[in-house]
Amino acid sequence: MKTDGSRREGNRDEVSPAVIKRLPRYFRYLRELLRNDILRISSGELSKLMHVTASQIRQDLNCFGGFGQQGYGYNVKYLYGKISEILGVTQNYSAVIIGSGNLGRALASSPIFEKRGVKLAALFDVDPDVIGTEISGYTVLSMDTLEKYTSENPVDIAVLTTPKEVVRETAERLSALGVKGIWNFASREIELPGSDVIIENVHMGDSLMTLCYEINRKNGENR
Amino acid sequence: MKTDGSRREGNRDEVSPAVIKRLPRYFRYLRELLRNDILRISSGELSKLMHVTASQIRQDLNCFGGFGQQGYGYNVKYLYGKISEILGVTQNYSAVIIGSGNLGRALASSPIFEKRGVKLAALFDVDPDVIGTEISGYTVLSMDTLEKYTSENPVDIAVLTTPKEVVRETAERLSALGVKGIWNFASREIELPGSDVIIENVHMGDSLMTLCYEINRKNGENR
Repeated sequence: MKTDGSRREGNRDEVSPAVIKRLPRYFRYLRELLRNDILRISSGELSKLMHVTASQIRQDLNCFGGFGQQGYGYNVKYLYGKISEILGVTQNYSAVIIGSGNLGRALASSPIFEKRGVKLAALFDVDPDVIGTEISGYTVLSMDTLEKYTSENPVDIAVLTTPKEVVRETAERLSALGVKGIWNFASREIELPGSDVIIENVHMGDSLMTLCYEINRKNGENR
Repeated sequence: MKTDGSRREGNRDEVSPAVIKRLPRYFRYLRELLRNDILRISSGELSKLMHVTASQIRQDLNCFGGFGQQGYGYNVKYLYGKISEILGVTQNYSAVIIGSGNLGRALASSPIFEKRGVKLAALFDVDPDVIGTEISGYTVLSMDTLEKYTSENPVDIAVLTTPKEVVRETAERLSALGVKGIWNFASREIELPGSDVIIENVHMGDSLMTLCYEINRKNGENR
């Protein structure tokens, strides 16, 4: 299915970081629409669904050009495909999880990778009691075999759920092995000066603090 | 330990949402400084550490007034205390985890609550095989006892790690029980129109997509 209207052809290089930041949310909503067999939607309807102004939606989505058409609305499938492409979902990146504790298990058993076109390929750990056990269909590999594994199976993304004490050395090791990106869940930010590896530090606690702040503020108002 | 310079007294109501959003990161860095017994720091040093411009730091922190002093720098302990207070860290909110699967376990065994002054009080589940087992020192309670529990133990925050299918009904149930905030990890956004409950939806996958986007962009450049 192709787009119908095409006012101007968009270029991904023109898309601002602010818009890029909002794309995963569009991706999620469009995915849900597709799953419910909704193939077109007006900016007004999308606006209601996402609690964003229709004008914001038009501004964001017109960045890519050629999506909306007067009286027709957005072609959901095309838009989903385009956003997927921009976000790298169509690249089928491969990932490994380093650290097979509770969080590593939770990630391995969730649809988080598959939903975004990322292929989870293996889990690693250092604990002899965990190595060789099966988690969500993966046999946990020893960290001693990481170099051998990556030489045979190119790894795009490493997901770090190790204790913070070993995060830095693990990140350096992964960088040397040619990993392209590190998704870091350890409670210590990674910095690899001079390295080409892209690092995404996850700070789940920041979101807890935002929640606490909002509760605190509301309580203050009610006092 | 009190602040030294005091140009103007800040008011939390004046702090912009953009600054508030950055506060958890300051909190993390200040916490680390304190742990390393660093009691004062210049905006220049903090700037290098956090990879933010010194002028941004001065702008952000001067919102609260009275922190920095020419030639002395910031009083780390005072700043940490003030930010903690604004973020509600000093409120000692109580939390329960609903859903004691891998993610619930990962959260229960992490220092994520304690670090932010939140007291994890209990874990709940619906699975008879999980109810009654011990996780990180907590005996998992049955969801059937949730009403009784909350009537005896006021709960400020509920952490949702349930399957997405039951998220909505669970959120409504928690709202009726007077919970103040919901930290939602389920892969479905919660909306409770007309409810006072503050909801923080966590979308870990969005951060994976950001990483994929950056890898994709870099690959494009290198081509």
